[in-house]
Amino acid sequence: MDERAVLALLERELEAAGDDAAVVDDLVITTDMLHERTDFPSGTTRYTAGWRAVGASLSDVAAMGATAIAAVAVYAAPELDRDEVLAFVRGAREVCERVGAEYVGGDLDGHDEFTVTTTAFGRTDDPVLRGGARPGDRLCVTGTLGRSAAALELFDRASETDSAADADRLRERANELFRFEPRVDAGLALGAHATAMMDSSDGLARSLHQLSEASDCGFAVDAGDVPIDDALFEVSADDDEALERATTFGEDFELVATVPEDALEAVRAATAVPLSTIGSVRKPGDGITIDGDALEDRGFTHG
Amino acid sequence: MDERAVLALLERELEAAGDDAAVVDDLVITTDMLHERTDFPSGTTRYTAGWRAVGASLSDVAAMGATAIAAVAVYAAPELDRDEVLAFVRGAREVCERVGAEYVGGDLDGHDEFTVTTTAFGRTDDPVLRGGARPGDRLCVTGTLGRSAAALELFDRASETDSAADADRLRERANELFRFEPRVDAGLALGAHATAMMDSSDGLARSLHQLSEASDCGFAVDAGDVPIDDALFEVSADDDEALERATTFGEDFELVATVPEDALEAVRAATAVPLSTIGSVRKPGDGITIDGDALEDRGFTHG
Repeated sequence: MDERAVLALLERELEAAGDDAAVVDDLVITTDMLHERTDFPSGTTRYTAGWRAVGASLSDVAAMGATAIAAVAVYAAPELDRDEVLAFVRGAREVCERVGAEYVGGDLDGHDEFTVTTTAFGRTDDPVLRGGARPGDRLCVTGTLGRSAAALELFDRASETDSAADADRLRERANELFRFEPRVDAGLALGAHATAMMDSSDGLARSLHQLSEASDCGFAVDAGDVPIDDALFEVSADDDEALERATTFGEDFELVATVPEDALEAVRAATAVPLSTIGSVRKPGDGITIDGDALEDRGFTHG
Repeated sequence: MDERAVLALLERELEAAGDDAAVVDDLVITTDMLHERTDFPSGTTRYTAGWRAVGASLSDVAAMGATAIAAVAVYAAPELDRDEVLAFVRGAREVCERVGAEYVGGDLDGHDEFTVTTTAFGRTDDPVLRGGARPGDRLCVTGTLGRSAAALELFDRASETDSAADADRLRERANELFRFEPRVDAGLALGAHATAMMDSSDGLARSLHQLSEASDCGFAVDAGDVPIDDALFEVSADDDEALERATTFGEDFELVATVPEDALEAVRAATAVPLSTIGSVRKPGDGITIDGDALEDRGFTHG
């Protein structure tokens, strides 16, 4: 039984779950575990790991249209090296500062593999769920897609090069791409108008399939409007490969939202984060398409 | 560098940390990671594991004198077996129900070793910290000490016996002892009056050393007043061994609090949980003693 099947089962068991974050009173809560082997490629600094792990949870808070309050993390590793722990904490704290949240520490633990669990909290009286998209709404994405796919490629190249200087340069750039701005500000701007919202951590294609299932709707995406990150173009053989990776790779932590056409201007006025309209919500029978072709449910299944 | 040394370092880095839970606005938040090898002895059911892991975090909320709101957990295991996950969730949910909190799910993940991270949060306008004990206050403990020490002994015996029926019986009793009532109700009653409070998860001796450091005080414990659980007497060679284990073994999740003498009656009237007075707060120079002998800082260092 894979993770998604068990999750589907548990979602039926647990009413509060099943969105980017659980909702309790006016709070939203989300928790995630990340592992060195699957989530932090060789060359990821502990500073980047702290930023990225805590950022991923803050992204879930953003996807609910909530204000970010605080985050905690458990840091488990074979060795509790002082400099590594402090670098991790610095990354965790800085990503919290970016979105006005407090990093309030957590727990340290011995463990075979470097493993991090992060939990973040936010507040909202009106969380944006995944189930409200209506045919005619515009489909929006914040920022750009493909930063993490590009970072992975650069980490790989760093491991393969014989030049230590090249490897350092590639790893530094990959780490930069791996750190991202959780879209809390954009989430609040979108939250006031969006009919459905989630983050793109499983990839655009999978996100659309999840929104489609929750909202009972289809989507039509215009490939030319998908905001592909420049870094992904740089490492891709051609534009087709870049588009393929931008739509399916995931791990990008942008927001995917559906917004009534007449609210787009108000959303854009309320946030400095670039917002691309990449298509529109369709009737369920229309399926999920990109330039008229089926966009399949492919993407990153988190292990 | 062991966990406590790194923790001490990080506590100086992170002002909000350093108590049973972090405080942000009117919320208290606590997170912990538990592992099969160190925390769930062979014979621990997934139901007990869910109860105990989430209960441990709720105990930290109780130790702040807060109302428990909700808990989440990440469940990571080599195999995501449906029945095991559901048993875990049932334990997690039941321990939440006991204290009026909501279990709102969490995350599932593949991992070499069964590993659980739980996060709980509560609400209070006036958290009870560790630093307010004053000479003359009475030292109080909720419930009994030694349930977990007894459970460990029974798990060990179950592994050693040749009789399958005996093993089952021993494991069932050990599992019962391993599930505990988080002291949220008593924490609220104590919270209105206690000058300092924490939970006993690292053992009574270590808890007193930690309170002593935070409050700059000593403690005098009367051995005869330490509430030793009957189950611990049953598995101990004699009363001395039982007392030794009750004071140093830990993992019991009772509350240790200091309360002004004239408030004891009000605390007892406000909760049905048994409250033992086991000694009193002394001047820092008096040290930490049990029947006049030094009570050393020995206990369970969580790995």
